[in-house]
Amino acid sequence: MTSKAPRSPDGVPDPALTPAARRRSRAHGPRAATAERREDILRSAMETFGARGYYNGSLAEVAERVGMTHAGVLHHFGSKDRLLLEVLEYRDRSDVEHLEGRQVPGGLALFHHLVTTARLNAQRPGIVQTYAVLSAEAVTENHPGQDWFRERYRNLRELITTALIEVCAEDDPPDPADLDSAAASVLAVMDGLQIQWLLDRDAVDLARATAFAIDAILASAVAGKRRVAAL
Amino acid sequence: MTSKAPRSPDGVPDPALTPAARRRSRAHGPRAATAERREDILRSAMETFGARGYYNGSLAEVAERVGMTHAGVLHHFGSKDRLLLEVLEYRDRSDVEHLEGRQVPGGLALFHHLVTTARLNAQRPGIVQTYAVLSAEAVTENHPGQDWFRERYRNLRELITTALIEVCAEDDPPDPADLDSAAASVLAVMDGLQIQWLLDRDAVDLARATAFAIDAILASAVAGKRRVAAL
Repeated sequence: MTSKAPRSPDGVPDPALTPAARRRSRAHGPRAATAERREDILRSAMETFGARGYYNGSLAEVAERVGMTHAGVLHHFGSKDRLLLEVLEYRDRSDVEHLEGRQVPGGLALFHHLVTTARLNAQRPGIVQTYAVLSAEAVTENHPGQDWFRERYRNLRELITTALIEVCAEDDPPDPADLDSAAASVLAVMDGLQIQWLLDRDAVDLARATAFAIDAILASAVAGKRRVAAL
Repeated sequence: MTSKAPRSPDGVPDPALTPAARRRSRAHGPRAATAERREDILRSAMETFGARGYYNGSLAEVAERVGMTHAGVLHHFGSKDRLLLEVLEYRDRSDVEHLEGRQVPGGLALFHHLVTTARLNAQRPGIVQTYAVLSAEAVTENHPGQDWFRERYRNLRELITTALIEVCAEDDPPDPADLDSAAASVLAVMDGLQIQWLLDRDAVDLARATAFAIDAILASAVAGKRRVAAL
């Protein structure tokens, strides 16, 4: 490969680079330029889908925000559906960036991590909005993010279930049905609070309410088995 | 008004009635026919918006499901935005239809009502889907349902706050910040569980998880003030 034209990792020349991007490409090599370009598009798509939803947000708008053409965006991501899935992965990575080894901790530390995430989220409404809109849109017929979200929730429920068991003494494990309810509820309350907070930021304290609810669910799953039957 | 042609309540002749609807109109009078027709459209719109979202669901599809024209739907509701708001009110009414005097109870009975609602919801995924999709879409820019949802959440949080105070002894009221957190969390966990359940009905027990979480939040707000600070 001797051509000076910027190429994507699969060797196809990129027709959509601006002059500045071409200069950057020459300075860092085509691979670095492509990676930067992809990240620009992912950020733009996250903003666009967050502001308008997936169906209502167009590739033309995603492209315009980064000074590219519609064809340029498709060159990097192939299709709007594919771009959505990459946006979802990109957003998920941002949740673990501040963690050691980018690994989510287990046991009680997992619940501290979730409360910390809510505190971070209170500073980044754009990312929260993207997630809230896309997760709910995913329940509509044939939405391209549906499998992704189903799998994500399954994995997270399992992570929380494992952490809850770790929190308990070995000779007094939690009720399995309570574990399922608690794991789903922890994720649910985080999601639901985000919607209320996005609609009414002065009325809802996202970080405090998340801490309160996770603590309440944790206490019931670990020590309050009796109470569910009473309600 | 002596004309035999069916008319809407504001006296405009309805151009979009099918022959069957015209016969029904003659039998019950134009007012009853119009009311039935409006309800048909509301049900159709609820299904359409639930299946596709508000932006992605078209008035043409709403009309087609009830054998009407696009113009006929607009004749009854004026605009797609207006139809959305009427759908939201219509859905809300279905939550209180089984209650005495259609009034939501206070005190501990409110929480029993919310758990009963979750049990009913587990039998009506269509209605749940409409609500889940529209409430999350409402956070997008300029969504016509935004004010309606903001107001709805404010009213419901106040209702829950009042009920929580009623549950407590007068000489030992709950912490005001806990009240706010608990009220938002009760609604949040109901909303969030619906999304997980819609994505994965075998994996999430909507009614049980809702009962578990509401019970946990209630216990913490009323008796567990100490715990929030510890997390």
